[in-house]
Amino acid sequence: MRYARIRDPAGAVRRGRYDDGVVTAAGTAFDTDRDDVDLLAPCEPSKIVCVGRNYADHAEELGNEVPDRPLLFLKPPNAVADPGSTVTLPAGKDRVDHEAEIAVVIGEQARNVAAGEAMDYVAGFTCLNDVSNRDDQNREQNWVRGKAFDGAAPIGPCLADPEHVPADAGVELRVNGETRQSSSRDYFMFSVPELVAEITAYMTLEPGDVVSTGTPAGVAPLADGDRVEVEVEGVGVLEHDVRQA
Amino acid sequence: MRYARIRDPAGAVRRGRYDDGVVTAAGTAFDTDRDDVDLLAPCEPSKIVCVGRNYADHAEELGNEVPDRPLLFLKPPNAVADPGSTVTLPAGKDRVDHEAEIAVVIGEQARNVAAGEAMDYVAGFTCLNDVSNRDDQNREQNWVRGKAFDGAAPIGPCLADPEHVPADAGVELRVNGETRQSSSRDYFMFSVPELVAEITAYMTLEPGDVVSTGTPAGVAPLADGDRVEVEVEGVGVLEHDVRQA
Repeated sequence: MRYARIRDPAGAVRRGRYDDGVVTAAGTAFDTDRDDVDLLAPCEPSKIVCVGRNYADHAEELGNEVPDRPLLFLKPPNAVADPGSTVTLPAGKDRVDHEAEIAVVIGEQARNVAAGEAMDYVAGFTCLNDVSNRDDQNREQNWVRGKAFDGAAPIGPCLADPEHVPADAGVELRVNGETRQSSSRDYFMFSVPELVAEITAYMTLEPGDVVSTGTPAGVAPLADGDRVEVEVEGVGVLEHDVRQA
Repeated sequence: MRYARIRDPAGAVRRGRYDDGVVTAAGTAFDTDRDDVDLLAPCEPSKIVCVGRNYADHAEELGNEVPDRPLLFLKPPNAVADPGSTVTLPAGKDRVDHEAEIAVVIGEQARNVAAGEAMDYVAGFTCLNDVSNRDDQNREQNWVRGKAFDGAAPIGPCLADPEHVPADAGVELRVNGETRQSSSRDYFMFSVPELVAEITAYMTLEPGDVVSTGTPAGVAPLADGDRVEVEVEGVGVLEHDVRQA
């Protein structure tokens, strides 16, 4: 099953089954291609725990060593952007990049979870663009200005059950129809269960929280007017626009 | 005025005026010294934006240069601990320190706020202990294991209106009655309005969000059984216990 959240024509937020752009909720089928139905991010995370350098090829492209444990950083709720929205890039920056990611959505409260049990706490997968302001990221110890700004985490379009997303699921990012990133879960250095185990050794993950699993090679700058598509096999396509302030 | 949140004897969460340990809410006076009334953190932040090295003396004690702009890092909601609670230190770490801080609680949604207007968005002040796991902080780029673990942000005991907290308000931390940190707002490198302006240039602050303003010199390790008190002039005393896992 796939699930999505929408704002219906009356303004109510609904959650329901998602099939080919149609959300069935509260006994009604809502077509998200209609102007008066807005697709929302499929979850409301209290935090997004992101993973850096989880694909060996991307670590090499940035000249970084492969870490011996996951590099973690945080995006707060203000970073979330809905599918179909327009992300305003931080003003006055020379380089703000896209980073296509497979995102894990937590289903049950999780703390000190062993890797072997971790999938019991996962509701499913979605697509995330880890929009990254390199000007500040390269100057600061903690990537707050670089990674936690408003709109830095478009998420969607739906939450797909784990059985829809194969172990070698592809992830791809296109800008204005041109493929910029293309890889698969096969190239993860740390698996989803390993990530959930490591994170929950330190902190409680709540239902709706997101673990974003890192980005493959091919990160590149975004520009005013760009249309971004992030596709994860088994989930679908997250689309959003880009605007320079 | 000072405000606090409690869980009343029936289990309901109440917010009311706070005077000398008594919370007046829903027409009833609740004495927080009674066993069946629990004082809660005075706000429910969607994020805590922390500031590093905001007192020149503490930056020197850690051997760090004084920054040309605020060093920012994040604590997510799982870090919040209530006044009077027992913080469990992360397991297997050699050094977990206290850091007494004056914390700003946001009252109105704030984005792109000029320093001159910033105090219009501030509900008041409280006390915060930025509990810091140095073992991991010193090994990681972003201070997630180091600063974002469960219980890493005891907050309270109340929210004090800005007029209660003088511009040179003192901040002190005691462990088992012995003073470890003692300084005042006089020594801030970046003022509260400057911090709010810098943060909201990148991200929206929501009502209840916290900006924690950094810690003065005197940080030191915590140990099993310690009783910590953080006192901010005009706010009161935040107490919590410490337990080693």
